[in-house]
Amino acid sequence: MGIDDGANYAPEGTARAVVEPGEFKFAVACLDHGHINGQTNGLIEAGGTLTHVYDPDPKKVSDFCDRYPAAAPADSIETLLEDTELALIASAAIPNRRAALGLRVLRSGKNYFTDKSPFTTLEQLAEVRAVVEETGQRYFVYFSERLHNEAAWRAGELIHDGAIGEVLHVTCLAPHRLSAATRPEWFFDKEAYGGIITDIGSHQVEQFLTYAGCDDATVNFARVRNCTHPEYPGLEDFGEFSLTGSTGAGFYSRVDWYTPDGLEVWGDGRTFIVGSKGTLEVRKYVDLGRTAPASRILWTNADGTDVIDCLGEIGYPFFGQMILDSLHGSEKAMSQAHIFKSAEISMRAQELADTGERE
Amino acid sequence: MGIDDGANYAPEGTARAVVEPGEFKFAVACLDHGHINGQTNGLIEAGGTLTHVYDPDPKKVSDFCDRYPAAAPADSIETLLEDTELALIASAAIPNRRAALGLRVLRSGKNYFTDKSPFTTLEQLAEVRAVVEETGQRYFVYFSERLHNEAAWRAGELIHDGAIGEVLHVTCLAPHRLSAATRPEWFFDKEAYGGIITDIGSHQVEQFLTYAGCDDATVNFARVRNCTHPEYPGLEDFGEFSLTGSTGAGFYSRVDWYTPDGLEVWGDGRTFIVGSKGTLEVRKYVDLGRTAPASRILWTNADGTDVIDCLGEIGYPFFGQMILDSLHGSEKAMSQAHIFKSAEISMRAQELADTGERE
Repeated sequence: MGIDDGANYAPEGTARAVVEPGEFKFAVACLDHGHINGQTNGLIEAGGTLTHVYDPDPKKVSDFCDRYPAAAPADSIETLLEDTELALIASAAIPNRRAALGLRVLRSGKNYFTDKSPFTTLEQLAEVRAVVEETGQRYFVYFSERLHNEAAWRAGELIHDGAIGEVLHVTCLAPHRLSAATRPEWFFDKEAYGGIITDIGSHQVEQFLTYAGCDDATVNFARVRNCTHPEYPGLEDFGEFSLTGSTGAGFYSRVDWYTPDGLEVWGDGRTFIVGSKGTLEVRKYVDLGRTAPASRILWTNADGTDVIDCLGEIGYPFFGQMILDSLHGSEKAMSQAHIFKSAEISMRAQELADTGERE
Repeated sequence: MGIDDGANYAPEGTARAVVEPGEFKFAVACLDHGHINGQTNGLIEAGGTLTHVYDPDPKKVSDFCDRYPAAAPADSIETLLEDTELALIASAAIPNRRAALGLRVLRSGKNYFTDKSPFTTLEQLAEVRAVVEETGQRYFVYFSERLHNEAAWRAGELIHDGAIGEVLHVTCLAPHRLSAATRPEWFFDKEAYGGIITDIGSHQVEQFLTYAGCDDATVNFARVRNCTHPEYPGLEDFGEFSLTGSTGAGFYSRVDWYTPDGLEVWGDGRTFIVGSKGTLEVRKYVDLGRTAPASRILWTNADGTDVIDCLGEIGYPFFGQMILDSLHGSEKAMSQAHIFKSAEISMRAQELADTGERE
């Protein structure tokens, strides 16, 4: 595998099953991004029962089955869509194909759980919004940078409990390791991945809307670049954007492929949250120069600074919530409106960066 | 004094005199901001000879003389301006009066060393630019957040030596402690202090231009707010802005008055620099949750992460360079063009935040 490049980031947590074996069956289809392993781990740990896997590439299927022996290879995607036992299909297709697959899954009467980014165009989003409305099925998204990170998840709980008062500003610094040699062709094709803000940025917008309690935001500024990789003309190796949320809270994010090779983890993801009564710094994957891996919150308020070690302490409650939402029609894990708005804003920011214009 | 509020931030360093006693005489005038002590310390440690002090408020003068017994009280500012022995007058007047005093100092045949921000309007800047040109005297500025911070200074040297390759992006997070009860009236009067980006932001722009090696920048976005202090309608307690520099490097800064009371220092100033071959994180005043005070650089490159402890190790070379520049007509400390451009850009960003328009 070589150095950790993030594409295979697949945390394993403490099992906290919310259903009995067989109560929530799911299958996995289209294994283009390594995130599928993280999605699968989360579902299994929360009690989901994996039954089948499909990918056109037999090598991908056999690697997956080695990792998850419970998965029986399926002949075709249609086999999965017709399987009335399945409650959900999880997928990490090439980004610009995620929406089309999702539409088929929703229309087959199942919920869909896609890797981020969930869309690459606003048109895809509009169609999925309509079909979710029409079918009543759910289009869930694996925003791993919060849902599969213990400190990032815990930060949301602390804020919700009033730890820092009103959230005034959020900064997300999101460097990622490029590992160009290990990437598939579509990684360098902008039409396929949608641009760096659509892709990595969608995570960051999702965190902002969650932490600041916003249901919408306007894009103030956005910029993308290929700074130092002329050999990959379709790659955006750097992006940044600024939002103002519906509460008045501000947001800035830098997304890039400049994690130095000497870092022990794929990225020193960092979130700084300024509240009216305190601040949080979230060190999501490493405590730089000290401990790796790490998942820590530094909470400062009127009394001092607490270092809260979250690694192995919090687990990943999202997956259980998502299963229960699927079964009961609730929206505890994450509302559809929140998911769609996160993706919409990241694509609007990408569009502003690409064209200098707002739609 | 109570908790550290930054207004009295006056580092003391190791004496590294660049001149003999009496070779570089200076006086101090207008003690409105506590930064004057930092300015004075820096000059004295570099070998400057303090001879006189003037302020209309006798209490301020007597406090200053208690701290610096070498300073003889002067009757008037004119006494200082007419003193042909003086090479420089240092000052920390109310911000919107700094330029007017500076013009008098320059025209008296002396150099001027003002606290930041050096101006509050672009008109003041234009006049000073012309008079510097006309008189050949220097208008120096105490951009303390780099010049009087060992890690921030050292970061510039590392970058200059190629430690992280080409600088692609700089982020400056610059929270400050409000300590409203200790502040003078002018602190809450926007006309007097010029707005939070003009004021605190000028430091940040100066750091960006230095680290990224830019001689100019355009303002992409800027915003200011009074989030939670309606009792001080003239206060901007929050600001943020984004620049693109002449090299293509990007810059984002958040400036605010939201340091929590429990933090051991007045602000957790932090700089993140992304280079083509590595990254620097500068923890300028505190290593959060661990050590205060601190002045550290976390340098990550292909080989790993080095934690470089700068506190007490680097000193403050700026002041000696400034004295030598004054005596020899060189521009080693900082060019006039760099100083003026830093202030200009911060005022343009403030203007964009205030009016939504660019001049």
